[in-house]
Amino acid sequence: MLRAIRAMLPRENLLYLGDTARVPYGNKSEDTVIRYSWEDAGFLVSRGVKMIVIACNTASALGADSLRTAWPDLPILGVIGPGARAALAATQNRRIGVIATAATIESRAYELRLRQAFAESGTGPDPEITGQACPLFVPLVEEGETESEITRLIAEKYLAGLRASGIDTLVLGCTHYPLLRPMLGEVMGPGVTLVDSAEAAAAETAALLADRDLLNESTADGTETYFVTDAAARFQRTAERFLGHAPESLSLVELEPAG
Amino acid sequence: MLRAIRAMLPRENLLYLGDTARVPYGNKSEDTVIRYSWEDAGFLVSRGVKMIVIACNTASALGADSLRTAWPDLPILGVIGPGARAALAATQNRRIGVIATAATIESRAYELRLRQAFAESGTGPDPEITGQACPLFVPLVEEGETESEITRLIAEKYLAGLRASGIDTLVLGCTHYPLLRPMLGEVMGPGVTLVDSAEAAAAETAALLADRDLLNESTADGTETYFVTDAAARFQRTAERFLGHAPESLSLVELEPAG
Repeated sequence: MLRAIRAMLPRENLLYLGDTARVPYGNKSEDTVIRYSWEDAGFLVSRGVKMIVIACNTASALGADSLRTAWPDLPILGVIGPGARAALAATQNRRIGVIATAATIESRAYELRLRQAFAESGTGPDPEITGQACPLFVPLVEEGETESEITRLIAEKYLAGLRASGIDTLVLGCTHYPLLRPMLGEVMGPGVTLVDSAEAAAAETAALLADRDLLNESTADGTETYFVTDAAARFQRTAERFLGHAPESLSLVELEPAG
Repeated sequence: MLRAIRAMLPRENLLYLGDTARVPYGNKSEDTVIRYSWEDAGFLVSRGVKMIVIACNTASALGADSLRTAWPDLPILGVIGPGARAALAATQNRRIGVIATAATIESRAYELRLRQAFAESGTGPDPEITGQACPLFVPLVEEGETESEITRLIAEKYLAGLRASGIDTLVLGCTHYPLLRPMLGEVMGPGVTLVDSAEAAAAETAALLADRDLLNESTADGTETYFVTDAAARFQRTAERFLGHAPESLSLVELEPAG
């Protein structure tokens, strides 16, 4: 997500918070995800950010509305809406698949937003939406197993139902899944468009900042500052896989408990 | 672990705490695991327990010493020592393998305890110890993938080095691994004894309570009370796989921050 935003917005100063002391969020309850999201947002607000992008799909699905209520004047963008709108733009046969963590699938957030986006577009019949939880994808990516035979077997198992359902568009509804994109593309075949929610959210971030006249006017390159809640050294290694380079400024922080 | 303790100690009242809001511990840093272990132990102490068994290998490896310093009068048993002593009793060729989470392997806690146990036994040369992190085993077990082709492939990959090293004893150094026991036995072959640290720790728990005259004198069956920090409903499903039955008394609790 940070990489996608940086590509679109080279002048913005980006603060990244990874709650590594409590990840993964995808197998935790709604109440807990909301509480953690509040604490994460509170930290960023205390640093004076002008906008928050929720890169985590689970936190977007479960926590975004609650954050908007808590900070009504701050633009807060999740990845679900942008992902749903990008899927609407991509599909031809109105059959869309969503892969995500168990918590995101159970929340039905993508399904709701997709139906909403299609209804607002006023074009034709209701879409057919098929959701599939892929709980092993996150640990596989974390272990660097993005191209192994093992991951292919797991992907074939998870995606069998989606292949049978005749979808032409598949939403990658988790931050980790774009690293599996080449393999997911092979398993699904050339007739299926893969939608990366992070890319869609980065595009909407740029549009929203422009629309509200919040773009950084400076001509200097923007900075990147990373915060994690645990194990900075391990994060450094994982981050390289996502960013393509080691994060430069990285600090370990403690979050204030919510409420 | 609870199942193993219950089998040995039918009269004891057992309190179980699962920190489901922050699991897994196995990929977090030492400082964070110690802090979480303090908070977990503090909760149990506040409930008036007479002994604490640390069922999590990662918390045993990283947090046990710190807990013993904090509560010097309370018997606190981890699984590393019992697992090491059981491996010493089982091996013939003094070549021992240990499989565990990344954090447990990196801590070298089993290696240290094994060398200590062998030195104290005064028998022959130093053992050869080979550790192997198996980070995908926990999510596989959590997803119920204990007998699938996928898990077999991953097990064969993780265990290839251990098979080549000629071990005759393999310590299952994580609470989740005994659910993979049939498959691990097939992959390692009949010449390798699998040591379950939880069973070894349950036996030492019984011995320690007897030794300190702490056994429950009541003739009634002991009770079981379960506490979790998140998502009681999801825990209920997973717990059935470990216990063989649904937990009866289950409460959601909030832990006090340490320090």
